Amino acid sequence: MSTVPMIEYADASPEVRAVYDDIMATRKVDWINNFWKALAHHPPTLRRTWESVKEVMAPGALDVLTKEMVYLAISASNQCGYCIASHTAGARRAGMTDAMFAELMAVVGMANETNRLASGHQVEIDEVFRPRR
Amino acid sequence: MSTVPMIEYADASPEVRAVYDDIMATRKVDWINNFWKALAHHPPTLRRTWESVKEVMAPGALDVLTKEMVYLAISASNQCGYCIASHTAGARRAGMTDAMFAELMAVVGMANETNRLASGHQVEIDEVFRPRR
Amino acid sequence: MSTVPMIEYADASPEVRAVYDDIMATRKVDWINNFWKALAHHPPTLRRTWESVKEVMAPGALDVLTKEMVYLAISASNQCGYCIASHTAGARRAGMTDAMFAELMAVVGMANETNRLASGHQVEIDEVFRPRR
Amino acid sequence: MSTVPMIEYADASPEVRAVYDDIMATRKVDWINNFWKALAHHPPTLRRTWESVKEVMAPGALDVLTKEMVYLAISASNQCGYCIASHTAGARRAGMTDAMFAELMAVVGMANETNRLASGHQVEIDEVFRPRR
Amino acid sequence: MSTVPMIEYADASPEVRAVYDDIMATRKVDWINNFWKALAHHPPTLRRTWESVKEVMAPGALDVLTKEMVYLAISASNQCGYCIASHTAGARRAGMTDAMFAELMAVVGMANETNRLASGHQVEIDEVFRPRR
Amino acid sequence: MSTVPMIEYADASPEVRAVYDDIMATRKVDWINNFWKALAHHPPTLRRTWESVKEVMAPGALDVLTKEMVYLAISASNQCGYCIASHTAGARRAGMTDAMFAELMAVVGMANETNRLASGHQVEIDEVFRPRR
Repeated sequence: MSTVPMIEYADASPEVRAVYDDIMATRKVDWINNFWKALAHHPPTLRRTWESVKEVMAPGALDVLTKEMVYLAISASNQCGYCIASHTAGARRAGMTDAMFAELMAVVGMANETNRLASGHQVEIDEVFRPRR
Repeated sequence: MSTVPMIEYADASPEVRAVYDDIMATRKVDWINNFWKALAHHPPTLRRTWESVKEVMAPGALDVLTKEMVYLAISASNQCGYCIASHTAGARRAGMTDAMFAELMAVVGMANETNRLASGHQVEIDEVFRPRR
Repeated sequence: MSTVPMIEYADASPEVRAVYDDIMATRKVDWINNFWKALAHHPPTLRRTWESVKEVMAPGALDVLTKEMVYLAISASNQCGYCIASHTAGARRAGMTDAMFAELMAVVGMANETNRLASGHQVEIDEVFRPRR
Repeated sequence: MSTVPMIEYADASPEVRAVYDDIMATRKVDWINNFWKALAHHPPTLRRTWESVKEVMAPGALDVLTKEMVYLAISASNQCGYCIASHTAGARRAGMTDAMFAELMAVVGMANETNRLASGHQVEIDEVFRPRR
Repeated sequence: MSTVPMIEYADASPEVRAVYDDIMATRKVDWINNFWKALAHHPPTLRRTWESVKEVMAPGALDVLTKEMVYLAISASNQCGYCIASHTAGARRAGMTDAMFAELMAVVGMANETNRLASGHQVEIDEVFRPRR
Repeated sequence: MSTVPMIEYADASPEVRAVYDDIMATRKVDWINNFWKALAHHPPTLRRTWESVKEVMAPGALDVLTKEMVYLAISASNQCGYCIASHTAGARRAGMTDAMFAELMAVVGMANETNRLASGHQVEIDEVFRPRR
């Protein structure tokens, strides 16, 4: 279920099917998860979001596993239930072990803690940390 | 400046100095940044926070660079100015290049976008993504 | 269910019934949703919150539909499940179509993305954007 | 400076002055801080916000100091610079000591940490914790 | 200043200049704001972000003014200083008056308040508000 | 259920059991809630998190009830469902009445509202509110 009707492959327009096909080919899976089926009610959003995700998550200066773990870290920090579930699956598919997950969550928790200690104490940025360029 | 007086090394109690010494030794630097000087007004918080950060950020299943980048990613997502400045420095010291920074921010931005697309559409978690254990 | 007992109309005090009556009359509905039934355990909060919502959401320089969409946009950004569900209904009652919903969510997603790109890059505010008054 | 012109007492309409007078009388101060001067460009928002703050922050089942510390805790958690500065002052005026501030921030930090550990691990709510009414 | 060097038009590659030219043509301005100059250090991010913003912010089922106000609302809610400053300017350019700004902020404030009242009370979603499709 | 297997007391290693025993002794309860059972998959995180929570939540300059209410306030503000449920229970065990809960939520809501009014209006910090030390 979702706010808008979810579009199944069988009911999809050629434009939507083209995106679905690319998602499945890129990820080497044979199904489409609910997130994309919900976005498909508005094909420009589906296409733009998928193309952006595809470009951003491709291996580059950072490998896919690192990117998937950062995605999961942000999702956990933001309390997005759907995203935590789907990117936990994504990070595991990319090679995240239970030990890596545990350390990732420890960093997320610690960053959220010290972010508030820093702001709550109104700590001034050290001169050497200021951007210079 | 900060909400509470910042404690300089010269004025610090032996308990606080011990933490400062460990921070400098662990990080191989010869100065203490403002965050710790502010926490030092309450030695138990200084000690506990440092020991937690030290443990969490040590290399393990994840390397130091990955951990520093996740810390920066969370800080950028949370809009913590001090933390963004200090952990940008930390991540660079650990080896983050401009290209890695650019891709890191791209993932942070994309995750924050799709987190809201997922929640805003009230997308139901796919059965295969649900935790089973 | 909720943290505190929800107060049904039949069991409500005259003070609470007066608020319930005003909610139903203002919204032209014949029932009270769970949010208000939960607040009713503390009549001053019920009254103050309703009077504020009623004043803020009345048509003025902005029309009701725009206000309901902004409310939904904030709720989606904040990951509040109850508020997303209730304000999706509210915005639709005010005239939001599926196409408007899709564009609204696209803006919410994009703003959440660029908010983090701006903070993460520590971008300085352009002189012409600074408030001058 | 602010987005809209700030209204000084000398330039204020009788409606705005009445709110300013009540703020100063209630808080036993002889000046108005910038927050209210900015809201004053829209008198209904000034009046409504002040009346709500006045009602919510009055002593009741919770004393004023506890309420001011909770206000500061939320502001630190939300990274609102203005609110952290003004409510640190407010909490101190109500009796917050440096030791109380330190413990308050420690709780804020810890809550922000465990909030993400709980969501990131997708921990199911224990049956006994579920609301029953 | 920013984390990475900001690229001025005179120093920009043809790829970056093409984006800058399109930004100025689309917005009918003759300068580039710092946000884009910072993103320009990584041309794929510059291009992708601009193309997404351009597509999302174009008039459609929602007009440009509504979209700019939603963007500002989210930025204020997220405490992004740069984005608040730049999108206040953007919304005004699109026609936002002081009265519209005041009502917009009132809605943002109210939504942030009731989002927490709903979650804090653990209010269950009313059956009629649940997505059905 | 959770992302990682939850460790029951009967299946726990001596290291994990020692933490479980301390949790039950400190809280004077005879069971372990799901949060700790999930963290137990990574004993260093379990131990560190418990020792930090135990130290931070012990009575000191602030009493236990105040600390539990602040914890609940942050959890409600952050939209963490698990944490709201568990810390509502914790605050009640420490003595929070329905009236105290109602006033606590009212403060949380108001702080979240004015945090956005302050940032959205770009209000400059009053000179007297700036930290001086």
